[in-house]
Amino acid sequence: MTKKKAVVLLSGGVDSATTLFMAKEKGYECLPLIFDYGQRHKRELESAKKISDSAGCRHKVLKIELPWKGSALLNKKKKLPNNRSFKEIKKGIPSTYVPARNTIFLSFALSYAEAIGAYKIFIGANAVDFSGYPDCRPAFLKAFENVIRDGTRRGMEGKRIAIEAPLILKTKSQIIEEGERLKVPYEYTWSCYAGESSPCGNCDSCIIRKKGFEGAGIKDPLVE
Amino acid sequence: MTKKKAVVLLSGGVDSATTLFMAKEKGYECLPLIFDYGQRHKRELESAKKISDSAGCRHKVLKIELPWKGSALLNKKKKLPNNRSFKEIKKGIPSTYVPARNTIFLSFALSYAEAIGAYKIFIGANAVDFSGYPDCRPAFLKAFENVIRDGTRRGMEGKRIAIEAPLILKTKSQIIEEGERLKVPYEYTWSCYAGESSPCGNCDSCIIRKKGFEGAGIKDPLVE
Repeated sequence: MTKKKAVVLLSGGVDSATTLFMAKEKGYECLPLIFDYGQRHKRELESAKKISDSAGCRHKVLKIELPWKGSALLNKKKKLPNNRSFKEIKKGIPSTYVPARNTIFLSFALSYAEAIGAYKIFIGANAVDFSGYPDCRPAFLKAFENVIRDGTRRGMEGKRIAIEAPLILKTKSQIIEEGERLKVPYEYTWSCYAGESSPCGNCDSCIIRKKGFEGAGIKDPLVE
Repeated sequence: MTKKKAVVLLSGGVDSATTLFMAKEKGYECLPLIFDYGQRHKRELESAKKISDSAGCRHKVLKIELPWKGSALLNKKKKLPNNRSFKEIKKGIPSTYVPARNTIFLSFALSYAEAIGAYKIFIGANAVDFSGYPDCRPAFLKAFENVIRDGTRRGMEGKRIAIEAPLILKTKSQIIEEGERLKVPYEYTWSCYAGESSPCGNCDSCIIRKKGFEGAGIKDPLVE
């Protein structure tokens, strides 16, 4: 029997890696989409490719331009948030916010899904232990599903392309526990915004990751 | 006084050119976004740039990849619809449909608008004399506005970025009459899907254009 296809957004971080392995466990033929969008560093791109390979998937890397650089993630001259408490991180939208990033990623995933006849798009969005990005919340994903319904041939025919966000309401520790069970190769993942040879430990992303591994009682393979 | 900024999606065709000049008349500083997305031919790209220049605007050209080629517009091996009656054209979604094209274009426009502080996105979508594309209909644009509300920093702050589609319910003739009044340089526009040195006259796009100019009683500057 041919497996049903699913497009999976893959960034190289803990969440999307775990999502990929969850989608695989559900029996989908997973087709990861990886974006080269001018990130500060290329480490997460390399991570994403390794994770896709280790899951035995055929990925596509899409290069996209965002020449308006409205984010510290795209602009090395802007300062990254540093040494903030978890409470501070959860307070507002940080300088690493990239306007409409998930909208752009989901749009390409949608185009791909419709072109190849996939009925699912998996995204590792999380609205619990996250950086306050608006486009990681359930309301946003629901709104995007209505765009799919009203803006595609498939939708006009009364069929669906559904967005699945299996991590949306999990804590980082729960995500990592689930990933351990699925043998997600966390040694290949990359979370740090800085992109040096080892994680900085101080950026928001490192702090959220650390909390997750500690809460799950699991050793982060990237930390000595 | 500084003018309010508006991002304008510009394809090089009659509709988006007219939309640009309408937005200009409304007093916006218009910032056209042009997409190089692997169209069969580059003529419409050149047209878009000329139109932007003649409106005195600073445009950006974004190159995007859609490596799944699910459309006759992206794949020269696929046959274009040819010599169809206007009634046939309006019946269904043709092979020139590019999955999620306007969703992708609007996503980039949204990112750009939020990054530069623009409160409007203009799109030349039309749901009357059109090719049956689902992502040209009012319901789709409405759904995308909800994505903006729920998926951006601006939306979380209770502010809006609105989509304006001033042609959505106009006939092609009404659009061209409006454009004549605004002195839109239709001699620079390009509609033909084939992209030879002169319009083929037989593709859906040429047929819709012809009906528009004839109905408006205006001579198409591209036709000898």
